[in-house]
Amino acid sequence: VFLSDYGHQDEFVGVCHGVIARLCPAARVIDLTHGVRRHNVRQGAMILARSLQYTPPAAVVLAVVDPGVGGARRAVALRLADDRIMVGPDNGLLSLAAARAGGVVAAVDLAASPWRLDPVSATFHGRDIFAPVAARLAAGEPLDEAGHDLDPAQLIAIELPRARRESEALVAPIVGVDAFGNLELAAVGEDLRALGVIAGEPLRIGGGNRRRQGPGHAARYGATFSDVAPGELVVYEDATGALAIAVAQGDAAGRLGLGSGDQVRITGGQ
Amino acid sequence: VFLSDYGHQDEFVGVCHGVIARLCPAARVIDLTHGVRRHNVRQGAMILARSLQYTPPAAVVLAVVDPGVGGARRAVALRLADDRIMVGPDNGLLSLAAARAGGVVAAVDLAASPWRLDPVSATFHGRDIFAPVAARLAAGEPLDEAGHDLDPAQLIAIELPRARRESEALVAPIVGVDAFGNLELAAVGEDLRALGVIAGEPLRIGGGNRRRQGPGHAARYGATFSDVAPGELVVYEDATGALAIAVAQGDAAGRLGLGSGDQVRITGGQ
Amino acid sequence: VFLSDYGHQDEFVGVCHGVIARLCPAARVIDLTHGVRRHNVRQGAMILARSLQYTPPAAVVLAVVDPGVGGARRAVALRLADDRIMVGPDNGLLSLAAARAGGVVAAVDLAASPWRLDPVSATFHGRDIFAPVAARLAAGEPLDEAGHDLDPAQLIAIELPRARRESEALVAPIVGVDAFGNLELAAVGEDLRALGVIAGEPLRIGGGNRRRQGPGHAARYGATFSDVAPGELVVYEDATGALAIAVAQGDAAGRLGLGSGDQVRITGGQ
Repeated sequence: VFLSDYGHQDEFVGVCHGVIARLCPAARVIDLTHGVRRHNVRQGAMILARSLQYTPPAAVVLAVVDPGVGGARRAVALRLADDRIMVGPDNGLLSLAAARAGGVVAAVDLAASPWRLDPVSATFHGRDIFAPVAARLAAGEPLDEAGHDLDPAQLIAIELPRARRESEALVAPIVGVDAFGNLELAAVGEDLRALGVIAGEPLRIGGGNRRRQGPGHAARYGATFSDVAPGELVVYEDATGALAIAVAQGDAAGRLGLGSGDQVRITGGQ
Repeated sequence: VFLSDYGHQDEFVGVCHGVIARLCPAARVIDLTHGVRRHNVRQGAMILARSLQYTPPAAVVLAVVDPGVGGARRAVALRLADDRIMVGPDNGLLSLAAARAGGVVAAVDLAASPWRLDPVSATFHGRDIFAPVAARLAAGEPLDEAGHDLDPAQLIAIELPRARRESEALVAPIVGVDAFGNLELAAVGEDLRALGVIAGEPLRIGGGNRRRQGPGHAARYGATFSDVAPGELVVYEDATGALAIAVAQGDAAGRLGLGSGDQVRITGGQ
Repeated sequence: VFLSDYGHQDEFVGVCHGVIARLCPAARVIDLTHGVRRHNVRQGAMILARSLQYTPPAAVVLAVVDPGVGGARRAVALRLADDRIMVGPDNGLLSLAAARAGGVVAAVDLAASPWRLDPVSATFHGRDIFAPVAARLAAGEPLDEAGHDLDPAQLIAIELPRARRESEALVAPIVGVDAFGNLELAAVGEDLRALGVIAGEPLRIGGGNRRRQGPGHAARYGATFSDVAPGELVVYEDATGALAIAVAQGDAAGRLGLGSGDQVRITGGQ
């Protein structure tokens, strides 16, 4: 399973596939996505955390969103409590998935891995360190031969923002925008129902800052886009279990003028 | 064979690959394209109809362009007259390919398929219904165990617009624009030759509405882009057998200011 | 190994995969990239030359960047001195990789290849000629049965521009821009060190035309982005061994207002 922010415009992804095929010809590679926004470690970490349950349990996970490549950040390979193996930079990218899998039971530092390509470039560790290590692990070579032992307690973890209750409103950070303009919130359905709102009822959505806020936008709490008319706003639990905002057959990010890092304020009623 | 409008920015395609690999590890997935324009069922249907002849005859086809996900539209798996199996929403997406293959000989409704993931989300049936059903069918499990029998006569079909003759002109709807700006018409070479035009001769291309039309653009009826000088317009039979308009080494959609849903009026002569 | 300028918006890549899977079901296809800029033969040739060392040595290389499709350019299959096989148009696309591999030891002209699909379209030789030929060669069929013998001396080669020294400056053509806005130069680290500049020292970067040039931009000769602060310019040897210009966590092409085909003038000092 391979995730990165390399995109498809250049040959970066293809070259990593080539390195893997040379070292582990039997490996089958699932490209989870290479569309993580450049250097957006948090977005990559969130995708890994919510997606790995849908990939084969024996898969090695290769993840590269690496703004610090060539700098002081560690390169690591991890064995999780569910026996899954992950390979990537130690910048928090792997931390949300690892926590969800029950934590890290073994870690190695790849700085002097005997499996690195020679020479190692300063800027393309995906090709020179991470892909060859992932390929050899996929081929069954033991994790402890990939590099030096590392105390899992030293690994970098990232924290996600959380929604909060403000009297009669739910104030939720927007943590993602998908290709359709749907806004993913750091909140779950239960947060909304705690306001006393039930499925099918009307809502209002405003910007997160109460002072600058107008009357907000009319929306509805639904199970899916189809619960509102085309062009209308719906708040729903998305396919990952998170609360999300969509415009049926439209673009919620564009309509509300909001994006990742902004907040929304949701209240019940017309 | 997997087609969708998911794009490559998010992990939707990769998660479906993961689900398939879990259920049918031996499956090899050919990504036909995930660049169908969002919710453009007709475009997806046209791509399937013209492409399946180039894919392995034993392949299961997984197709997801699904604006009605979570609503009342049926989810189906079909066996075609040529023995090919298709899985996707019953919104016409599968209908053009099915017709080209000689029709549907068996259909099942997947609403209560025992092969669905549990829980089924309201918005990501690609992951929760279509991918697991396609994977199990690819693994050789029988179609009639995928869900309830459905009368093929109840399936939704879509109709394509057609070119028409207006005295000395061919008026043809534009049904697609590719990444190069080439315009695909709902017409074939024979329609043009019926005007008395032969290969190599000059043409004029105007907008489809006669009243608002100026003198139009000079073009030539050619076999390929190379038959005209760079920057010139050529009308030719494209690789799918359809009549198309291109600018040699340029962008016909941009030059003519036309796109999918518009019409062109083609006449012979300078 | 498959490279093209087809992009991922249409089904062109997927249809070629289908053709390959029909003719050589055991083939595994590595998509090196399909993001070559449309018709940019030189960019495709440079990617092939620098990438093939990272792909399996036994792989057949299918490369299609083909502005002259349907015209007079030859379609060819080549055996290189390192025993690698390449298939594509004879427009220089294969020439840089072939030269790097020690040259071409055998060539065949595919114009009348018995392995072509029937009919052959005028515009999609990737599907109708190149993919079926590559698939059969990958399946082990002999090169000399793919078409007519061709003298390798007749193959088209392309030449790359080169950096030059102008008194105290290095004037280097920009030959590529990656998805991150990093500028690739037709120069290597040694060219810069020949100016007396050593790693860590300051540089100035100006446009290539001395007359219109202001004082230029401050930069530093580093090993990687991490050697400068975010937002600062760095000149470094990239992962392919070429000299490149980046803005740490930014977009050098945008900052400098330069792109492929432009030149830069690099001098030592503040």
